[in-house]
Amino acid sequence: MDNVDKVSIWQSEIESFLKEKFLSWNFTQTENEFSNVGIHSLIPAGKLFRPLLVRAVAHDENNHNLNHQYVEIAMELHHVYTLQHDDLPCMDDDKERRGRASAHIQFNEWKALLSGDSLINLSYYALLNCSSQLSSYYIKYFSWAMGPKGLIYGQVKDLSLEMTNSFKDLIETHKLKTSRLIQSSLVGGYLMSQDTPTVKVLSRAKAYHKLGESIGITFQLLDDLCELADDEVSNHENDVNPFLKFEQTTFNELNRRLFSMRDFLAKGENPNLSIVLTNYFQKILGVLQSGEQNLAKRLPKDNLEKIVASLKALNF
Amino acid sequence: MDNVDKVSIWQSEIESFLKEKFLSWNFTQTENEFSNVGIHSLIPAGKLFRPLLVRAVAHDENNHNLNHQYVEIAMELHHVYTLQHDDLPCMDDDKERRGRASAHIQFNEWKALLSGDSLINLSYYALLNCSSQLSSYYIKYFSWAMGPKGLIYGQVKDLSLEMTNSFKDLIETHKLKTSRLIQSSLVGGYLMSQDTPTVKVLSRAKAYHKLGESIGITFQLLDDLCELADDEVSNHENDVNPFLKFEQTTFNELNRRLFSMRDFLAKGENPNLSIVLTNYFQKILGVLQSGEQNLAKRLPKDNLEKIVASLKALNF
Repeated sequence: MDNVDKVSIWQSEIESFLKEKFLSWNFTQTENEFSNVGIHSLIPAGKLFRPLLVRAVAHDENNHNLNHQYVEIAMELHHVYTLQHDDLPCMDDDKERRGRASAHIQFNEWKALLSGDSLINLSYYALLNCSSQLSSYYIKYFSWAMGPKGLIYGQVKDLSLEMTNSFKDLIETHKLKTSRLIQSSLVGGYLMSQDTPTVKVLSRAKAYHKLGESIGITFQLLDDLCELADDEVSNHENDVNPFLKFEQTTFNELNRRLFSMRDFLAKGENPNLSIVLTNYFQKILGVLQSGEQNLAKRLPKDNLEKIVASLKALNF
Repeated sequence: MDNVDKVSIWQSEIESFLKEKFLSWNFTQTENEFSNVGIHSLIPAGKLFRPLLVRAVAHDENNHNLNHQYVEIAMELHHVYTLQHDDLPCMDDDKERRGRASAHIQFNEWKALLSGDSLINLSYYALLNCSSQLSSYYIKYFSWAMGPKGLIYGQVKDLSLEMTNSFKDLIETHKLKTSRLIQSSLVGGYLMSQDTPTVKVLSRAKAYHKLGESIGITFQLLDDLCELADDEVSNHENDVNPFLKFEQTTFNELNRRLFSMRDFLAKGENPNLSIVLTNYFQKILGVLQSGEQNLAKRLPKDNLEKIVASLKALNF
């Protein structure tokens, strides 16, 4: 089985478990099925990047019980709540998501709002199905990471436009809004396979926490870079894209984060995590290479080459 | 110290702890303080009915550690999230709450939405500060009670008008939307003072769960009854008030629930719970007695007398 197959098998396993558990945690016998609102946004699933990170770490750490399955779907349930709420008119007012109508367009606003609320609660319910002795410790970390000192503060910085004040604000927003859920995925995949909170265990959890920060920031900056590979770039994008606005600083940050990921993976202790990240970076490389000419018009050539080289260096 | 003093001292202790913890769980140093949105809705607090139930049970069960303080504020944080979201234009569109502007009027819609989301996460964070050995067990129960088979399904039944189909739907909605949080308060106040999930402990938790169902339904039906004590009754109220719509059935249900509460309290094992409930029923009695003439015009006299007698019988 090659690595691409492995990732797609995992994706389909995660999607099945997600659907099965979600339906069993909802009423599905009433005429006006509220569970349809959640299903609409959850299934078919996106790329399941966060659950894949959970599973990769769980496998790397020899977690043979089924706790990680619940952590996987908890991450996706929580992620999809943020999508349902972010798409609402009072937030980003997005009418489409994952190639289909957003939840509030397909149903209505109050259903999308309540569906999001229910997904938050279900993400905790999912985690509380884990039998790990460290589950309380981890779930407290998770609720901190998702709360008003974490993900939600990132949304506040974004919507209040505080995010665009400076490069520092931009990175801080990415850390909160994107990295926190990725960190929760890595730390959850790890901690839920451990028995006792020894110094060694907590230090390894901290290493995953640190790695997750870099993955999240990389994830967002590569997304910004891919925007500039398109044929057309909107005026808004021209104003806010960090590669145009902060230029060298952004390239340096991205490269620094890619190096720190490479150093982590180079230890060879995380073959599965390498597979999942490589799979993702291959897709980004594809986008960058097919948009090469567009990028070259907009950005310095040597900076681009450095990024491509760094991405290639991450393919193990 | 008389009982009224006891309740108001508890209220002020709970409010202080709520404010202190909420502020420490938010960033409060930024210019544009997001924590203000939460504080606006949380403080000054309402009657703190749910936290008072937690504390009453904790005291009745000789819980001398501080776990119950975190359960108390968890219940209030979660309750206030439902208020912030319920008040939004796509839900009940209420411009006032507790005599001041609703969160989305005072700030804006996205801030009210995100503040509500953050309060959900903080309610879990609060519970995860408890050191009880039964905390995972209880928090799983809590997430079930607050999720799409619990409180949120009650909101769905209400907003989809399914609630008004029949008397059965009305009671089912009250059970989900109101009782679940009250049940969580009683069960949390009890379980967080226990060490092991013995058969005896779980059976007592079940008794609190059952009692909470009656308290929630009573709470809502008495609220409906008080509406009819006003000088003016809106056309909407005339259409939906269960005492007008389902008449005898509603009186019977309320009386049955009041009897079951009386039977529970008559065992004498819950002096503090009796104080909190008595304090609440005294206030309701006051409203009913001052609106006696209005009620007499709208409802059968002997039914009213039975309810007043049942309420008086609950004063221990």
